[in-house]
Amino acid sequence: MKRRQVLLGAALAAGASFHFPAPAVARGLRELTMVTDWPEGPGLFASARRLAQSIGMATGGRLRIEVLPSGALVRPFETFDAVEAGIADMFHSHTSYFEEKSSAFHFYSALPFGFTANEMLAWVRFGGGQELWDRLSANFHIKPFLCCNTGTQMGGWFVNEIKFVEDFSGLRYRMAGLGAEVFRRLGAIVILLPAADIVQSLQSGAIEACEWGGPWIDTVMGLHTAARYYYYPGWHEPGAAVALGINKSVWESLAPEDQQVIEITATNEYAISLAEFNTNNARALQQLRAEGVIHIQGFNEEILRSLARISSDVVTEAASGDKLSREIHESYLTFRDQIVDWSNISESTYIGIRMLR
Amino acid sequence: MKRRQVLLGAALAAGASFHFPAPAVARGLRELTMVTDWPEGPGLFASARRLAQSIGMATGGRLRIEVLPSGALVRPFETFDAVEAGIADMFHSHTSYFEEKSSAFHFYSALPFGFTANEMLAWVRFGGGQELWDRLSANFHIKPFLCCNTGTQMGGWFVNEIKFVEDFSGLRYRMAGLGAEVFRRLGAIVILLPAADIVQSLQSGAIEACEWGGPWIDTVMGLHTAARYYYYPGWHEPGAAVALGINKSVWESLAPEDQQVIEITATNEYAISLAEFNTNNARALQQLRAEGVIHIQGFNEEILRSLARISSDVVTEAASGDKLSREIHESYLTFRDQIVDWSNISESTYIGIRMLR
Repeated sequence: MKRRQVLLGAALAAGASFHFPAPAVARGLRELTMVTDWPEGPGLFASARRLAQSIGMATGGRLRIEVLPSGALVRPFETFDAVEAGIADMFHSHTSYFEEKSSAFHFYSALPFGFTANEMLAWVRFGGGQELWDRLSANFHIKPFLCCNTGTQMGGWFVNEIKFVEDFSGLRYRMAGLGAEVFRRLGAIVILLPAADIVQSLQSGAIEACEWGGPWIDTVMGLHTAARYYYYPGWHEPGAAVALGINKSVWESLAPEDQQVIEITATNEYAISLAEFNTNNARALQQLRAEGVIHIQGFNEEILRSLARISSDVVTEAASGDKLSREIHESYLTFRDQIVDWSNISESTYIGIRMLR
Repeated sequence: MKRRQVLLGAALAAGASFHFPAPAVARGLRELTMVTDWPEGPGLFASARRLAQSIGMATGGRLRIEVLPSGALVRPFETFDAVEAGIADMFHSHTSYFEEKSSAFHFYSALPFGFTANEMLAWVRFGGGQELWDRLSANFHIKPFLCCNTGTQMGGWFVNEIKFVEDFSGLRYRMAGLGAEVFRRLGAIVILLPAADIVQSLQSGAIEACEWGGPWIDTVMGLHTAARYYYYPGWHEPGAAVALGINKSVWESLAPEDQQVIEITATNEYAISLAEFNTNNARALQQLRAEGVIHIQGFNEEILRSLARISSDVVTEAASGDKLSREIHESYLTFRDQIVDWSNISESTYIGIRMLR
């Protein structure tokens, strides 16, 4: 805690350099700082930067947003604290990283057996999700928006084949989020490693399995050189959403037209980022198939039934903390009960029949 | 043709009243006219209006867009001509309605066994689709954007059960688009009826089957009171996109920031409209299930295989007109080959396993 305070203090001093001089402010120019939990590069950081650029262009340069990679102003995962404290104006991150603030933030990121990207947007915009999120975030002086989604991820890389639920017992597995707790209950030894260490840990045998994202960013990282079995689907992160969290005083100080630009640009980028992940995942998967080295296969139904049953318990426990968390959980479940049937007979059935030969 | 010219002439005169007086223009205000092929009401017209309102708000009222229902300024399906001629500034419509201009416009609307809503956006933004669409539309002095999508539709309402491909022979079927041609080749008698006549035609026996949209707008229209079998999936319209087509001179006269607002608002509304259709379709489906009167069932695999085979021929023929059409077809097929596998093992498999009991 002490180190965090020192860092925030240093950032507060550094933060001053991100602001325009008084004459620019008089012309209505605003420079805002966006902290992220992503290293520079394609994927999530590029999406944050595109969001900032679009806002800049749509306001004729009136709003300039500086996008900072992980660690540049505050330490990783301190982005939420920084925005709450006003040291940064906005964050771009998975809200599940902030589960210590409230476990209900998981509902706006990714849940095991939860919403896909499209379902998440539907719940947030038409199922009451945004109103509940606003109430949850207001406790931390933050205004939240959905602004990016990686789509349905893969189920993970495994050195050995997984045939039975018992195969997870004792398995040394790199994983994050509520899905990690599901594997823990199956006896896996779940480890959280930084991205840079994953490939080597697989190669040395320190871990025997990991999950990261989808075929695109997984192959960029080189995971296909370290494990042979690539399982689907990503039941633990079926549509990992990223949030734009804006300091509420900053948000309320913006002109209505600038608020509107931010809101529509965030949803625009939610759709564009999903399209980019899907495009690049499709291409990387095609490449892996062509190379023919990796076994790309689905978890069997027995395993999936176990994972689903345990996930339901884990999610319920995560939402049991306080009244608002339970309210969010109930809203999420009600909407999920409505939409699973429709998603199944419409898009999912259609995509399945397209594979008929 | 003569009547059209008279109507366009009248509209040209009427159009003058949609523009601001000179002092407003001097303050940078622009009033633009959007013609649509939708009657006033929820769904598509409401999406067009929300798009216009968002653009108005994001430009601080600088761009004001008047949204007109079908038939208000020009006759239905003359919206494209009106924008090409500069009588209206933009249209909001399915480009498949304009197949007489070029059959390649089908590729930006809905194709039998073609893209879902997410795949369409991925192709347009990251697969070269937008560049080809710009070239196709420039021939008609139009700048196009994706701006709305109904999602995967249902496969249609049938008075009697459909068990064999032969059951389509002689069937009197209300249908539009390239899917209609597929059914014609199976011996169906395909009829295009205005929306207002469909329920009565089913009740009188004048038609025995029809397709319209999804559970939401179908039940609003009352189709569930006139037929008992409701089939899925909507193989003929797996993700019906709506285009915003802007007169190119108008587009080029806009400030870069206003162009940017229009572009991001269009994609924002593409995502929002899809979320709205999915939400309301899910709720209407749940209601139909609860009532227990309608048989909601999938087409069998034999039927789907036949439909897929004929669809491929129909689409290839639709794209055979000229060099640019063939280029668009090739780009579409290349992207489709890449993405079907990924869509199947990611989102579709995930949504399917969520139904495991």
